[in-house]
Amino acid sequence: MDATARIERVLTTALARARSPGCPPLLAEAMRHAVFPGGARIRPRLCLAVAAACAEDDPAVTDAAAAAIELLHCASLVHDDMPCFDNADIRRGKPSVHRAFGAPLALLTGDALIVLSFQVLAWGAAATPQRLSGLMLTIGRAAGAPGGIAAGQAWECEPEVDLAAYHRSKTGALFAAATAAGAVAAGADADAWRPLGEALGEAYQVADDLRDAASDPAELGKPVGVDAALGRPNAVLQLGIDGAIGRLDSLIAVAIDSVPDCPGADAMRATIRAQVMRFLPKELAQRAA
Amino acid sequence: MDATARIERVLTTALARARSPGCPPLLAEAMRHAVFPGGARIRPRLCLAVAAACAEDDPAVTDAAAAAIELLHCASLVHDDMPCFDNADIRRGKPSVHRAFGAPLALLTGDALIVLSFQVLAWGAAATPQRLSGLMLTIGRAAGAPGGIAAGQAWECEPEVDLAAYHRSKTGALFAAATAAGAVAAGADADAWRPLGEALGEAYQVADDLRDAASDPAELGKPVGVDAALGRPNAVLQLGIDGAIGRLDSLIAVAIDSVPDCPGADAMRATIRAQVMRFLPKELAQRAA
Repeated sequence: MDATARIERVLTTALARARSPGCPPLLAEAMRHAVFPGGARIRPRLCLAVAAACAEDDPAVTDAAAAAIELLHCASLVHDDMPCFDNADIRRGKPSVHRAFGAPLALLTGDALIVLSFQVLAWGAAATPQRLSGLMLTIGRAAGAPGGIAAGQAWECEPEVDLAAYHRSKTGALFAAATAAGAVAAGADADAWRPLGEALGEAYQVADDLRDAASDPAELGKPVGVDAALGRPNAVLQLGIDGAIGRLDSLIAVAIDSVPDCPGADAMRATIRAQVMRFLPKELAQRAA
Repeated sequence: MDATARIERVLTTALARARSPGCPPLLAEAMRHAVFPGGARIRPRLCLAVAAACAEDDPAVTDAAAAAIELLHCASLVHDDMPCFDNADIRRGKPSVHRAFGAPLALLTGDALIVLSFQVLAWGAAATPQRLSGLMLTIGRAAGAPGGIAAGQAWECEPEVDLAAYHRSKTGALFAAATAAGAVAAGADADAWRPLGEALGEAYQVADDLRDAASDPAELGKPVGVDAALGRPNAVLQLGIDGAIGRLDSLIAVAIDSVPDCPGADAMRATIRAQVMRFLPKELAQRAA
């Protein structure tokens, strides 16, 4: 089964369990809206690719790790889009959850998706329970405080921002968790795979900054120019377009060089190149192709 | 060490890990504000009492279960108090988190506390990892969808409310998790202890309805009359004061009768009576004493 099919299947199963009888119908619908149809599913793809490179022996626990990471990502998008943060009307080309269902349900949708991400881990680790604690700690670290996505977002509320911590937490942490959790799910060493995720996370952030500064909003599926309007840190504002592109190129090289020795190292490097093409702005992807 | 000391110690340790270097200072402060000083800590006390009744053999995992439940409870209070729900200014006699730190940080504080509750379980189950999955599923079920506290709160967003599901999810689920998780932490059967938590959860809800209808807001530490003002289901509105008191008495009797055969059954029944005194409205507690 290919990565897309595995990811959509495990997410569909998880959502079905959350939507089982007794769930308030609008909450069930809002959770579905937040997760399907997905974006590029870059983080869970990375997780699956690392597990495969490490010769995974329990695909169910890999799938669970990938799904947990994607559910946390979806939860953070729902909460970040809310009126008290970005007040974004559009996400993935359709109304954001709070626009479609209201702020109260958006708040609870994010909460329920965070909980679901940990439930998915417990369900998926049935055959390899000795990996559950490591997965929880790897993924939990990327989600909460002091350095997960909630903490990253919280830097936007501070009078003085630690820019490195902001990017490392808000974007890098979940990419690092994706590669580290892929390794843990395959019984391999998490720390050896963390630098790959960190480099890709930073590359993704720079690519996102390039898109925010330069893209067509219709193509992107969400508003552009938000960082400049809100005075947020942004690589394009700091380095200029050419400087940001140079930074992106060097981060991709770092990522490819960081792949540890493992049975599937060559395939992993090819996957990295393919995933990077998914998040490059269209014009840059055409240039790089 | 008594229950109060155990609970405050494990919560203090968990918050210290979340606040470690790199955490945005206001987020760290808001998380602390949400958890300390606590309310009656009824749910974690119940969890500890059940584990003791089941002859606990790993106090660290019991403490973790109790802390996870209390952190989820604190997270739900932070989110329920937000402007898009109750817009409550006061909680536990001081400003609610969103009043003290703003809605964006309140949102992230709840998120980070939910994540922390699962991290605490993984940290605490180091010596008995075979109990981790059961604890995660017992506690996760009480937190998310279809029947946890997020789902319970979500019934307030539905055009037609399933009242039984509303109370069972919003209040009962975490009480049932408290007793069930106490059993799991001690290596005992969760299901045998679930009816006790369910009965106490319903009793707590009726007591809360009585307080909402009749209390002095200064004594209660939060506004009163909210249910009537918002048209919410409330036992006093449905049964009258005397009817609600009768219902409360019968639920307490059900709770005491539900205690399974175990080494500490008598002590457990005494604990139930003591815990009930903690959540009775002052006038009723004096009458019952």
